[in-house]
Amino acid sequence: MTVLGFLGGTGDQGRGLARRFALAGHPVILGSRSPERAQAAADELRATLPPEADVRGMANDAAAAEAEIAVVAVPYDGHRALLEALRAPLAGKLVVDCVNPLGFDERGAFALEVEEGSAAEQAAAVLPDSRVVAAFHHVSAILLLDPQVDTVDTDILVLGDDRPAADTVQALVDDIKGMRGVYAGRLRNARQVEALTANLISINRRYKAHAGLRVTDV
Amino acid sequence: MTVLGFLGGTGDQGRGLARRFALAGHPVILGSRSPERAQAAADELRATLPPEADVRGMANDAAAAEAEIAVVAVPYDGHRALLEALRAPLAGKLVVDCVNPLGFDERGAFALEVEEGSAAEQAAAVLPDSRVVAAFHHVSAILLLDPQVDTVDTDILVLGDDRPAADTVQALVDDIKGMRGVYAGRLRNARQVEALTANLISINRRYKAHAGLRVTDV
Repeated sequence: MTVLGFLGGTGDQGRGLARRFALAGHPVILGSRSPERAQAAADELRATLPPEADVRGMANDAAAAEAEIAVVAVPYDGHRALLEALRAPLAGKLVVDCVNPLGFDERGAFALEVEEGSAAEQAAAVLPDSRVVAAFHHVSAILLLDPQVDTVDTDILVLGDDRPAADTVQALVDDIKGMRGVYAGRLRNARQVEALTANLISINRRYKAHAGLRVTDV
Repeated sequence: MTVLGFLGGTGDQGRGLARRFALAGHPVILGSRSPERAQAAADELRATLPPEADVRGMANDAAAAEAEIAVVAVPYDGHRALLEALRAPLAGKLVVDCVNPLGFDERGAFALEVEEGSAAEQAAAVLPDSRVVAAFHHVSAILLLDPQVDTVDTDILVLGDDRPAADTVQALVDDIKGMRGVYAGRLRNARQVEALTANLISINRRYKAHAGLRVTDV
């Protein structure tokens, strides 16, 4: 079991992933700018889980320091500043970036330009002493958080230049019921994986769905 | 049944798609810069199909003029010039763009920058009098061409700003055994769909597969 720290862990995506990893037996920490909010979110999440679930809440910097693996689940507009502030506690650690740089207007979602190419490459640039892997871009937070949903039926595209780190994340993904990790290339090809979330939002609107992806023939 | 013209139809992707549409009963035309090469490719393809298959080969401009729907399957580096040359015969028609702007180096495939954002948006810019839809980016030409493969088990993401045109293409996709068309947003979100082919190439290398995509919960 691995202690997983969710930075921005009080948002839907962070809480949803933390919930599924806690159900899989991993100790999870919800991080937030406000330790009180993190604690409250952790208490609320723990109440929905079996008694053996190990869920704590603390400030992002404490969560980063305590975690063996950190999962970045903040909104894109706070992404760079958060990681710059946490460079020291994240040094030497595996950091999983789930961030989708998206904008929204009256026609729906669209991909934002990122100076480094993608949120994952931005994380790698800001955290030169961490091992950055990108994953969990497409999974629906609504499904992750839904107590009626036992199995989250989706593949998770896992990207990284550090293959052992990507392998570690794939194995973690496989711990979640219904999910499978699929290695999908280097970080230089993360941009389109992050941006594809805009298409899934279009699909969700058109089909009233919580769309995910499966990779065939793998 | 719809007469489908494949521009750049002597390449693997064009011949592969033409083969599957011919098997579904649609008359198909392989277009090429060289009418002789188009004719030879059509003869070769026809020999692998049941006698009722309707397969012709001709120059790209004649194929564009004859087709009810044109499918653009050229390599990206010839994309803009081909479409500029065919603006007149493609006027008023539905044009399906399948082109993936990719580069390759020793680390594999990566997405190229396109001035208009994507190949599909480039087609829409070059062909203001056509109705442009993007589709068929991820399907493996190897599977399409393999006579042992009866069913090509994949979803096809269909993008377009003209909804009736996108609906028409979705219905066409559904004619191919195993395929399903899924509406996946506007052309401004085509870039990441095209670029995702680089990730599928990484997946194919890692898993020795011919990966495709299925959208879950739709």
